[in-house]
Amino acid sequence: MVSTKNVSKSDEILSVASTRGFFFPTAGIYGGRAGFYTYGHLGKLLKSNWEFLWRKHFLSKDNFWEVQSNNILPEPVFKASGHLENFSECRVKCSKCNSEFRIDDIVLDDSKCLKCNNKLVLSKDDGFNMMFPLVVGSGEKAYLSPETAQGAYITFKDEFKATRGKLPLGLAILDKAYRNELSPRNLFFRLREFSQAELQIFFNPDLPGFPDDVEWKGIKDYGLLLAQADNNHKVSKVSCSDAFKKFKLPKFYLSGLVRVQKFFLDIIGVPSDKFRLFEVPEGDRAFYNRIHYDVEILLDSLGGFKEVAGVHYRGDHDLSRHQSLSKEKLEVFHDGKRFIPHVLELSFGVDRNVWLLFDIFYHKDLKKSDTLLFRFPKLLAPFQVSVLPLVNKEGLDVKALEIHNSFRNAGISSFFDDSGSIGKRYARNDEAGTPFCVTVDGQTLDDESVTIRVRDTSEQSRVKIGELIITLQRLLSR
Amino acid sequence: MVSTKNVSKSDEILSVASTRGFFFPTAGIYGGRAGFYTYGHLGKLLKSNWEFLWRKHFLSKDNFWEVQSNNILPEPVFKASGHLENFSECRVKCSKCNSEFRIDDIVLDDSKCLKCNNKLVLSKDDGFNMMFPLVVGSGEKAYLSPETAQGAYITFKDEFKATRGKLPLGLAILDKAYRNELSPRNLFFRLREFSQAELQIFFNPDLPGFPDDVEWKGIKDYGLLLAQADNNHKVSKVSCSDAFKKFKLPKFYLSGLVRVQKFFLDIIGVPSDKFRLFEVPEGDRAFYNRIHYDVEILLDSLGGFKEVAGVHYRGDHDLSRHQSLSKEKLEVFHDGKRFIPHVLELSFGVDRNVWLLFDIFYHKDLKKSDTLLFRFPKLLAPFQVSVLPLVNKEGLDVKALEIHNSFRNAGISSFFDDSGSIGKRYARNDEAGTPFCVTVDGQTLDDESVTIRVRDTSEQSRVKIGELIITLQRLLSR
Repeated sequence: MVSTKNVSKSDEILSVASTRGFFFPTAGIYGGRAGFYTYGHLGKLLKSNWEFLWRKHFLSKDNFWEVQSNNILPEPVFKASGHLENFSECRVKCSKCNSEFRIDDIVLDDSKCLKCNNKLVLSKDDGFNMMFPLVVGSGEKAYLSPETAQGAYITFKDEFKATRGKLPLGLAILDKAYRNELSPRNLFFRLREFSQAELQIFFNPDLPGFPDDVEWKGIKDYGLLLAQADNNHKVSKVSCSDAFKKFKLPKFYLSGLVRVQKFFLDIIGVPSDKFRLFEVPEGDRAFYNRIHYDVEILLDSLGGFKEVAGVHYRGDHDLSRHQSLSKEKLEVFHDGKRFIPHVLELSFGVDRNVWLLFDIFYHKDLKKSDTLLFRFPKLLAPFQVSVLPLVNKEGLDVKALEIHNSFRNAGISSFFDDSGSIGKRYARNDEAGTPFCVTVDGQTLDDESVTIRVRDTSEQSRVKIGELIITLQRLLSR
Repeated sequence: MVSTKNVSKSDEILSVASTRGFFFPTAGIYGGRAGFYTYGHLGKLLKSNWEFLWRKHFLSKDNFWEVQSNNILPEPVFKASGHLENFSECRVKCSKCNSEFRIDDIVLDDSKCLKCNNKLVLSKDDGFNMMFPLVVGSGEKAYLSPETAQGAYITFKDEFKATRGKLPLGLAILDKAYRNELSPRNLFFRLREFSQAELQIFFNPDLPGFPDDVEWKGIKDYGLLLAQADNNHKVSKVSCSDAFKKFKLPKFYLSGLVRVQKFFLDIIGVPSDKFRLFEVPEGDRAFYNRIHYDVEILLDSLGGFKEVAGVHYRGDHDLSRHQSLSKEKLEVFHDGKRFIPHVLELSFGVDRNVWLLFDIFYHKDLKKSDTLLFRFPKLLAPFQVSVLPLVNKEGLDVKALEIHNSFRNAGISSFFDDSGSIGKRYARNDEAGTPFCVTVDGQTLDDESVTIRVRDTSEQSRVKIGELIITLQRLLSR
C-alpha cells in the first residue's frame, strides 16, 4: 500500500492548531503524552458547534433523547457487553529489543521491528485487554467505558418506563470513552481518551416505526453513496428503493444511512466525492453487527479514506446479554406482543469529526504563499465575526467594542481583535476560520459605516452600522 | 448536632426523579453502585440548561474561555498539584468486624462501628489516596483527575500564547472529576464520578485588571451575604466597599464573590435567606487558599446549609509548583514586569447544583395532597411548554402536533404529550417542572383558540393560535 499521506498538510494543520488555540498535546509542559489532546478555546468552540449541529440533526425527532451515564461502569456491564472477553488487541514483540506493537500497525507498515528493524515474533500475551481497569471503594472491579453505548443499554429499562413505553426510543450519549491503546497514532484517529456521539435507536424489528410512509416517500429516491463489499468497495450512487429491493437492506437501516449521509453532506458540508458508506465485510465486523456500514471521508492529511462514523444494526444482542446477566427483564410489551427491542446504532467519533473539518476546509492561497484559511461552514466556525478597530485610538476602539457587544446581544458569536497590524489580524482571523471581519476605520466616525471583509474572497464592502446586524444575519443564513 | 434532615422531601425527590426520568442509580439492572448516578432525559436537559446559564454568566467577558482537557492526566501533574501527597482521607476500622469508614462520617454520626456497633480503632493505612490510579500504555502511571482545575493550569502556557498574552485570562473547564470515596453519601454531595464547572482566572496581583473602575462603581454598594468566621458564621449583609475597607478583602476577590452571589440569586433564583458565603476557617482550608469562601445553600432535603461552590484565591501556588516540577517557565511578561500570575478560582459542583434545584423549587400543594411541583425558573426547566391534545381524535392530535412543531421552530423547548387523562398529564408536567401547558380541545377546531395553563397557579386562559408564540415568548421572558 503506497502512502499518499500529505504530511505537509497535516503538519500545517497541527502548527496552526496550536498557534491559534484549536488544540494542544495534553500536559505539553511535561512533554505531552501520546494519545491525549487538549482542546484550546477555538477548538472547544468548534467542537461545541459540531455537537450542537449533531444534536439538532439527530435528536429533533420526538422520543429521541440525550442521557448521561458514567465513564466508570462496574465489571458485570463489560461481562455482558463482551468487552472483558473480546476487547483486546493482538500484539507482536521484537525478538531482539522486546518492543511491542499492535499487529495491524506491523502488517500495514512492515514486518520488521519498528524500533530496531529486527525480526518479529508473536507476543505471548496476545490478549491484552484495552480497557482501563479500576478498583472502586474497598475492592470492586470496574472499568473506564471504551464506548458510550453500554451506558445507554443499561439505562434502557429506566428510560423506557420514564418516557412512557413508546418505541422507537432513541437514547443518545455524548461523552468520553477510553481505550488503552498500545500505540496511539494518526492524530485524532487513535486516541486513548476521546469523545463519542452515539445514538441507540431501540425498536420493534417487525414494526420499526421508522421510516413511516411519509418519510419513506421522501427518501426512496435519495441516492446513497454505497461502497459495497461485493462491488470491490467501488462507490456507486444507489437509491434507497434500489438498495431495499436489490440489496435487501431493511428500510429502517436505509433511513439511518440517509440521516447520516445528509448530516455529512448537507449540514457539515463534506463534498460528495470525499464521502462514502463503506460496507464492512463480514470477517471484519463485530459478530453482533448484522449490518455494518462505516462513514469514510477522504482525508489528504491521513492519506486516504478514514472512518469517522458507523451505522450498526446490532439486533437484540446487547439487551439480550444484559437481560441474561442481570436477570432483569428487558423485554417490552409493545404493538400487542412481548419482545426484546432491536438496536440501530449511529456512532460518531467526535474528535475524528473535528479533525475532518481541518482537513476538508483547509485552503491555501497560492498567490500569497503563507496564507492558510479554514473555510469552515458559518455555523461551525468558532466565531461568526471579528470586530477590528483599524487603530486603537481616536475612539475607533470604543466604537468597535460597541459593535462587538451589539453582536453578542444579537446572538452572533463575535470576537474583538485589537492587537497587531490590520493585515496580521486578517490573517489570524482567516486561520481561525472566521467568515467575516468588521473593520472600524476613520470613515466610520464620519458616516457611521464600517467594512465587512469576507474570509473566502478577501473582498470588502462598506455597510452602515444601522444595517450591520441585519446584513450579517443575512450573510450567515446563506 | 441535631439532624433536621427532611427525609420525606428527599425521598419524594428521589422517587419523582426516577419516575419522570431526571436521574437513576447507574446500572440499576445490576443493583446500582454507590456514588454513581445517571441523568435521564429530563435530568440531562436540566443540567444542560444550568450549564448554559453558567457559561453565559461567567464566560461573557472578553478573554474568558472554555477549554477541554483530559480526565486521565499523567502522574507529574499530581505530584505538582500535591494530590499525590495530600489527597487522602483518614479512615477508621472496626476492632471487631474490620469494616472501614471515613473519620468524618464517624465523628458526625457516632464513635461506634456503623456496621456491628463495636469499638473503633484508627486504621493503620490512614493515608488512603482518593485518586483512581491507572497504567497507560506499557507502564506509565496516571490518574483520573479529582478536579478539573489542573487541566487549566497545565494548559495555561499554551492558551496564554494563543490568546496573545493578555491578563486577566479566564480558563473554564466543565467536565467530569473522580474521587474514590470510601463511603459515598448524601446523594449528589459525595459522588465517585461527578461534574464540575470551574473557572480559573489568571491575573497580575498588582494590577488585577478586574474590577475596573466602572465595574467597581457598579458593585461597591452591592450587599454580600457574608458568614464570617470571627462572627461565628452569622450571616450579615456587607457592602463591597465595607468588606474592602473593614475586612481587607481585595477588590478582585470581592468582584468574584459578587459574580457568584448574583449567579445564585438572580440567575438561578435561590431565595436570599437560603444563601450564604461561608468563610472557611484557616484550619479547614487548603494551605494554598489565601482566601476561601464557600457558597452554601440551605437544603431541607439534606438538613442544613451545604456547599455547592467555592471562591478560592490560590495565589501563585499552582503555576509555581508546575513551573518548578516541569522546568518550563510559566512566568509571563505583562504590565512591564515578569511574574507568575495569581489565580482566582470559581469552582462549582454541577451535580450538587442540580440537586439544589430540586430542593429549592420543590413545591407541594397541600390542598391536593399528592401533587408535587418543581417550580424551576423558566430557563432552567427541561421543557418550557408541553402541548396536549385533549383527546387523540377528531384532528385534535394533528392540530396539537402542528403547534408543537411551530414552538420547536421558534426555538421554544416543547414536549408533545398525548397519552393518559388530561388530569394525569397536567400532574406529570407539574412533576417535570414545565411552566406552561397548551391544551388543544374541541373549541380549538371552532375558533382556533387553545388554553394556556400556568404550572404555578393551575390557572388557565384561552389564547388564539395566531398569538400563541408571541404570548409564550412574553410569558417566558418575565
